[in-house]
Amino acid sequence: MKAILEHIDSPKDLRTLNPEELTHLAFELRQFIIDIVSAKEGHLGASLGVVELTIALHYTFNTPTDKLIWDVGHQAYGHKILTGRKAIFDTNRQFGGISGFPKMEESEYDAFGTGHSSTSISALLGMALAARLQGNFTRQHIAVIGDASIASGMAFEGLNHAGVTNANILVVLNDNAMGIDPSVGALKKYLTNVKTGTAKEENIFECLNFHYSGPVDGHNLPLLISELERLKKIEGPKLLHVITIKGKGLKKAEENQVVYHAPGKFNKQTGELEKSSTNAQPPKFQDVFGRTLVELALKNDKIVGLTPAMPTGSSMKFMMDALPERAYDVGIAEQHAVTIAAGMAADGLIPFCNIYSTFLQRAYDQVIHDVALQNLPVIFCLDRAGLVGEDGPTHHGVYDIAYLRCIPHLMVCSPLNEIELRNIMYTAQLGLHGPIAIRYPRGRGSIVNWQQPMKKVALGKGQQLRKGNHIAILSTGPIGNNVIELLNEIDSGSKIAHYNFPFIKPLDKELLKDIFQNFDHIITLEDGAAIGGFGSAVLDFANNIEMNKIIKIFGIPDVFIPHGPTLELYKEAGIDKMSVKKYVQQFL
Amino acid sequence: MKAILEHIDSPKDLRTLNPEELTHLAFELRQFIIDIVSAKEGHLGASLGVVELTIALHYTFNTPTDKLIWDVGHQAYGHKILTGRKAIFDTNRQFGGISGFPKMEESEYDAFGTGHSSTSISALLGMALAARLQGNFTRQHIAVIGDASIASGMAFEGLNHAGVTNANILVVLNDNAMGIDPSVGALKKYLTNVKTGTAKEENIFECLNFHYSGPVDGHNLPLLISELERLKKIEGPKLLHVITIKGKGLKKAEENQVVYHAPGKFNKQTGELEKSSTNAQPPKFQDVFGRTLVELALKNDKIVGLTPAMPTGSSMKFMMDALPERAYDVGIAEQHAVTIAAGMAADGLIPFCNIYSTFLQRAYDQVIHDVALQNLPVIFCLDRAGLVGEDGPTHHGVYDIAYLRCIPHLMVCSPLNEIELRNIMYTAQLGLHGPIAIRYPRGRGSIVNWQQPMKKVALGKGQQLRKGNHIAILSTGPIGNNVIELLNEIDSGSKIAHYNFPFIKPLDKELLKDIFQNFDHIITLEDGAAIGGFGSAVLDFANNIEMNKIIKIFGIPDVFIPHGPTLELYKEAGIDKMSVKKYVQQFL
Repeated sequence: MKAILEHIDSPKDLRTLNPEELTHLAFELRQFIIDIVSAKEGHLGASLGVVELTIALHYTFNTPTDKLIWDVGHQAYGHKILTGRKAIFDTNRQFGGISGFPKMEESEYDAFGTGHSSTSISALLGMALAARLQGNFTRQHIAVIGDASIASGMAFEGLNHAGVTNANILVVLNDNAMGIDPSVGALKKYLTNVKTGTAKEENIFECLNFHYSGPVDGHNLPLLISELERLKKIEGPKLLHVITIKGKGLKKAEENQVVYHAPGKFNKQTGELEKSSTNAQPPKFQDVFGRTLVELALKNDKIVGLTPAMPTGSSMKFMMDALPERAYDVGIAEQHAVTIAAGMAADGLIPFCNIYSTFLQRAYDQVIHDVALQNLPVIFCLDRAGLVGEDGPTHHGVYDIAYLRCIPHLMVCSPLNEIELRNIMYTAQLGLHGPIAIRYPRGRGSIVNWQQPMKKVALGKGQQLRKGNHIAILSTGPIGNNVIELLNEIDSGSKIAHYNFPFIKPLDKELLKDIFQNFDHIITLEDGAAIGGFGSAVLDFANNIEMNKIIKIFGIPDVFIPHGPTLELYKEAGIDKMSVKKYVQQFL
Repeated sequence: MKAILEHIDSPKDLRTLNPEELTHLAFELRQFIIDIVSAKEGHLGASLGVVELTIALHYTFNTPTDKLIWDVGHQAYGHKILTGRKAIFDTNRQFGGISGFPKMEESEYDAFGTGHSSTSISALLGMALAARLQGNFTRQHIAVIGDASIASGMAFEGLNHAGVTNANILVVLNDNAMGIDPSVGALKKYLTNVKTGTAKEENIFECLNFHYSGPVDGHNLPLLISELERLKKIEGPKLLHVITIKGKGLKKAEENQVVYHAPGKFNKQTGELEKSSTNAQPPKFQDVFGRTLVELALKNDKIVGLTPAMPTGSSMKFMMDALPERAYDVGIAEQHAVTIAAGMAADGLIPFCNIYSTFLQRAYDQVIHDVALQNLPVIFCLDRAGLVGEDGPTHHGVYDIAYLRCIPHLMVCSPLNEIELRNIMYTAQLGLHGPIAIRYPRGRGSIVNWQQPMKKVALGKGQQLRKGNHIAILSTGPIGNNVIELLNEIDSGSKIAHYNFPFIKPLDKELLKDIFQNFDHIITLEDGAAIGGFGSAVLDFANNIEMNKIIKIFGIPDVFIPHGPTLELYKEAGIDKMSVKKYVQQFL
C-alpha cells in the first residue's frame, strides 16, 4: 500500500480514507512517532497507546469545530501530527519549537491547553454549556482522560456536575491501568473488576448519571469508529471506557511502561535505550532525596513517605521498595496527599510529603488550612522547583516561594547542593515545631561524592561563601553554584562577596544586617518568580529595619517562560550567569 | 426526669446513662444549643441535625482515644458542649472565646481542626494508618461528613485511597441534602435515589471498596448506637449513611434551612428572627455584587455566573433567580468552578466566577494553569477578602494578594467602595484581554445610595483622594475608608495626602513615581498579609526604579489572626485606625 500519512495535512484528509487505509495510517503514525521520539526524546508510551483512538476521534468527529480536549496531553503527539504539525513535529519540546502539550495558541485543534491532569472534564463541560447558551445544539465535545487522571478529585467534581446537566459531552476513559507509574486506588481496582467482568451490575459512572459504554478494545479501529458513531447520536453526558496498552506497538515500551513513558533517546527498531555516559556524574536531586530518605527512615521509624503519583519521578520509589509499609503512592491526589500527611503528623509520625512544586499549587489550601494553621511538622519536599526545561510553562515550579512565603508557621528553604539538601532533611526529621518546605530543582546537582555523613544545620542561617569588599551577591538554591562559577571566572581581586541563603523563611536577619552595613551594591539571585520571592523578602527586611538600599533582584520576570533547555530558559528569564555578569561589571 | 446535661462534663459521664436518659439528654442538648445560639448567634441548623449522632458517637466510641473528626465543623456544637466546653460555650465565636470550629489546641477531643470542607477523610486516614504503623490495632477512627462535602473532589481522593487500605476507619455520611444551600450534583441525585429505594443494586461506595451500611434514621438514637456498635467490630473502611434533618427540633429551622444555617439572633421559643434595624444602611458588598451582576447580565448575554456552593452567601442567588439558565451552583468544587469558567471563556462567554478568597486557595493551580497561562478573560470575584470576623483563621481571606500577584497575565484589584466595585465589574465585562480578580470584604460597604449609573474605569489607575504635602498614605480596598475618616479627624492642615489604589496589579506606576518624588514619608495600608502584599509591591517598584524610600507597610503580620469582631481583629493585626494614627502623629 502506498504511503498515507504524508498526504494527511489535516483531519479533513483523514476522513476520505477507507477502513483499510485507516488501519495502515495507524501503522504509519505509530512509526512516525517512534522515529521522531527515538531521536528527539519526549513522551512515548502514552501517544503510542492512543494511535487508533486518535484516528477514530478525528475521523468520527468534525474537529476543530467539534471540541476535543486531551487530558494532561502526554498522549497528544498523534493528534498534533494529524492536525497540521507533522512537518514541525521534530521541533517538539525544543526551544522555539512546538509544545509537548496541547496549547491553544499553537493550533485551533487544541481546544484547551493541558499539562496538569484532570482538568479536561471541567473545561469541556464549560464549552458544552457555552455552546447551548449560544444556541449551538449540534456541536460535539470530547475529552480523552486516563484512568489515573480520572481518579483525581478535580475530575470527580467535573463528572459530578456534568451528570446533572444535559450537556452534550463524551468522556473517553483511556484505561491502560497506568499514569506515569501504575495507577492506584479503589477506582482503579473497580475498573479492573469491570474489565475482568467481576464487578457487580451497576456501574459507578451510571451512578453519576452518565450513559456508560464499554469496555471496548482501544486498538480495534473499526470497533472504535462504530462505537463513537453510535455515541455521537446520544444526547447528554456519556462515558466510553476504552482499554488500551501503553506503549502499544513497540515491544520494549509495552513491557516496561514506566521507563518508556519518556525514555530519552532509543533505537527505533529495537527500542533499546541509548547508553548514557559512564563517567561519574553528580546525582539527580531526585535520587539524593530518595536515597537520603531511605537512609533516614531506616534509623527513624517515625518517618513515612508520601507521593501523589510520582514514585519514579520523585524517587520515592526507593523508599517504597525498601520500606513498603511506610511509603505511599496516593495517586494523582495532591490535596489528599497533603492532608493525609497532616493527619499522620498530628498522630506523631514524621511525614516527608514529596510533591512537584507546580503540583503543590493543587494543594495550596491544604498547606495553609490543614498543615500550617495547625502547625503540624510536615516536611514538604518540593521537587522540580524553578524552571524545569522541556516540559515548559505548565510545569515550571516558579511560584512556590511567593505562595508559600506568606503562610505563617511555614519554613521555606532551598538548599545550595546535594549535601545541604541531605543536611536539611536530616535536621528536619530530628524534630520541628512546625512545617517546612524544601525546594530543589529537576536534574543533576553539582557534587559527585554526595553521600557524606549528614550533620545538623542551624535552621534559618545563611553563610558567606566568598569574601569581597564591594558587591554582595545573595543567592538561594542551586543557582548559587552559577555564582560560584562566575566569581571564579571574573573576580580575581575579591571585590565580590557571595552569600548562600538556604533559608528564605525565616531569613537570616543577622547576616542580612551585616551585609546591609557593609555593602552598597547588593544583588539577589533566585530560580523563582521575582514577585514575592527571595529578593523581595530581602528588600522587605531592609525596609523594615530602615536600612534601605537599592537591591538588584534577579528572579523570573512576570511572564510565562516557555519550554526548552533549562540553560536557555535561564537566559530567557535573565537569571543566567551572563546577565549577572553584565550587571556586576558596571561596578568593577 | 431530672436534668442530665448539667452533669455531663465529658463523654465518660455520658457512657453511664441508660437509653431513656440518653434520649432525654438529646432533648436537653438541643435546647442548650438553641438557648445559646439564639442569644449569641452562630451556626444553628447543622448542629441541631446531629444531636443524636453526636451522643451516639461519644457513647459508642472511646473518645478522645478513638479519633473523631467533624468535617467543616459547623455541626460540632453538640460535640463541644459534651466534651468539657459547656460552661464556656457562650463565648463561642467571640474574641478570646472558643472557636466556632473544632480546633486541636482547644481540646483533646478535637482530633483535627476543620473549617473548610472535605478534609476529614484524608486526615482521618492519616491517623488510622499512623495507628497501625505504631502498633495500635484497636483504636477507632470516625469522620462525620455531610453529603455536600463528600461530593467535593478532595473527599473523593480520600475515599479512593482509603478503599485500598485496610485502615480501620468509619465515614459517617450525614445526609441532609444540604450544604449551606441545597446540595447539588449527580452524587446528590444518586443519594436521593438510594434513600427512595430507586437506585439499582450496587452502591457507589461499595464500588470504592467500602463496607456500606444504611441509610439509617439519624434521629433514632437506639438504632444509631446499635449500628455503630455493629460497625465498630468490622475491620477496614466502612461508610454509614445517616439521614438527618438540618435544623431538627426547631420548626422554623427545619422549614427554612438556608436561613437557619446561621440565623443571627432569634426567639428561642418561636424561632422568630430578631428584626434588624429599619434605618437605611449601606448594602452588603455581597448584595452589590449580586444585584450588579444581574443588571449587567440582563444587558450582556455573554455573561454567566458561577458559584461553588455559595449562592446565598455570595448573593449569586440573585442571578440564579433572575437568569437561571446562565448562573450555576456547581457544589463544593472550587477547582471545577475555575476550570469550567476557563472553558466557558475559551468559548467566548464572560464568566463571573465568584469564590470566597479563602476558598480560592482550593483552586490555585486552576487559576494559574487553566486561566492565566491561557490568558482567558475570567472575572474572579473574591468575596470575603481580608479579615472575616467570627469565622476566624480558617476563613480569613488574607493571602490572596500575595498568591495572585505573582501570576502573570492576572489583574488584581480591590475597590474602595460599592460604586468602584460596580464600575470595575462593568468595565471588566466590556471585554478584557486576560483574567482579573476583584477582591472585596464580607459585610457592609459605606454608601447608602450605591445604585448609581455605572461607568468605565481606567484599569490600572489610582486616584488622589485628599491633598497633602508631608505624608502620603496609599491604601487599597475599603480599608481606605478608615483613612478617610482618620484624616478628617486629625488632619485639618492638609499635611497628609491620601491615594486610593484599586489596582494592586498592575500598579499605577505614574502615580507612584509622582508620590515618590513628592513625599518622604510614605505609608501603605491593606486588609491582607503584609508579606507579598500591596505595600510590598509598592516597595518593589520603588526599588526597581531606584527611588528607594522607607515605606511603612501596614498589613496583616505573619501570624494567624484569631476570630472575633472585625474591628477587634484589625487592632490585633495592627491595621486599625489607631495604629495608623499613632504612626503618622510622630511626623506631624
